[in-house]
Amino acid sequence: MAIKIKVEVLTQEAFAPFGQVIEMDVRKSFMINEGHTRRYHELAEVDVADGGGNAIFSIFKSSRREFPLEIKMMEHHPMGSQAFMPMQAAEWLVVVSEGDEIPTAETCRAFLASASQGVQYGKGVWHHPLLTLVVEQDFWVVDRGGEEKNLIEHYFEGEVAFVDIVPRD
Amino acid sequence: MAIKIKVEVLTQEAFAPFGQVIEMDVRKSFMINEGHTRRYHELAEVDVADGGGNAIFSIFKSSRREFPLEIKMMEHHPMGSQAFMPMQAAEWLVVVSEGDEIPTAETCRAFLASASQGVQYGKGVWHHPLLTLVVEQDFWVVDRGGEEKNLIEHYFEGEVAFVDIVPRD
Repeated sequence: MAIKIKVEVLTQEAFAPFGQVIEMDVRKSFMINEGHTRRYHELAEVDVADGGGNAIFSIFKSSRREFPLEIKMMEHHPMGSQAFMPMQAAEWLVVVSEGDEIPTAETCRAFLASASQGVQYGKGVWHHPLLTLVVEQDFWVVDRGGEEKNLIEHYFEGEVAFVDIVPRD
Repeated sequence: MAIKIKVEVLTQEAFAPFGQVIEMDVRKSFMINEGHTRRYHELAEVDVADGGGNAIFSIFKSSRREFPLEIKMMEHHPMGSQAFMPMQAAEWLVVVSEGDEIPTAETCRAFLASASQGVQYGKGVWHHPLLTLVVEQDFWVVDRGGEEKNLIEHYFEGEVAFVDIVPRD
C-alpha cells in the first residue's frame, strides 16, 4: 500500500521544524538605496560552518518527474543547510521529514512553494531531491562546499508514499 | 561634463576583477538526482567570515531609476562579498569600479547581466546600488550578517558618469 501525502501551504510557521522560508516578509523589511529598494532582511542564516565548511553558490536545472509522484527515497546533508531559490517564477514542491530518525512513508510531509518562495533545509533535515511542477525549472542553490561526505540517501523499504498534484503548464 | 560609460557584456572573464558571475557553466556541471537534475557546481564561494561574520539570505525589491542613468555615487562592503540573483527573468545592470581606490566617474564600468546571470561582488569591491531595467524586479541576496559597519558610500565630487541603455518593458 502507498500512503498519500497531503500537500500543505508553505508558511514560515509550518516549515519551522524543517528550516526557513525565504520570502518577502514585510515585517522584516526597510527601505534602502535612496528609496529605490526595499530590503527584506535576514530571512534565513546559512549554517555550513561544521568542519570548516564554507557556503558556495550552484545552480540546479531540474526536469519534472511523473505525477502522481512516488516518494521512494529521501536524502539529507548532515554537515550543513541547503537553500533553493527559483530562477523562473513557477510554483514548486517541497517534501521533508521531521526529526533525526530515518524517514518512512509515514513521516513525509509535502509543501507547495509559491513562485517567489525559496526554502532552506536546516542542517541534517531529510528532504526529497528537487521537485519542479513545470517541465523544467532552474534554482539558485546555496549549500556547503568541501570534500567531506555530506550526502546520505535513504531508500524506503516496503511502504512508499505518493503526492498527487496537477503539474503546471 | 559627464562621462559616458560603455555597457559591456557580462562574462566570467571580464568580471573576474570584481567578483564572480553565477551562471550555468556547463564545464562545471554534472548530473545528480537520478538524472532529473543538472548541478552547475561551485560557481562562486561566499566570503563573509571576517570578524566572525556569517552569510544571510535577504530579498531586495528594486524599482527602476531614470535612464539615461546618472552615476553619482558608489558603495562597498569592506567585510564581505554580496551576491544578487534575479527572481524574475529579466536583464539587469551592474556598475562596478576596480581596485581599492575611491571610485571616480572615470573608473566606473557597466555590465549587462542576462536574466539568468547572478553576480557576486567580491569583498570590498565598489559597486552601484541595484539597477533593474524593468519597472520592478526582485533579487535573492546573500551577504554578511552582523552588527559591524559594513557599508561605505562615496558620492562623486565634480564629474559624474552616466549609462545610456534602453529600459525594458
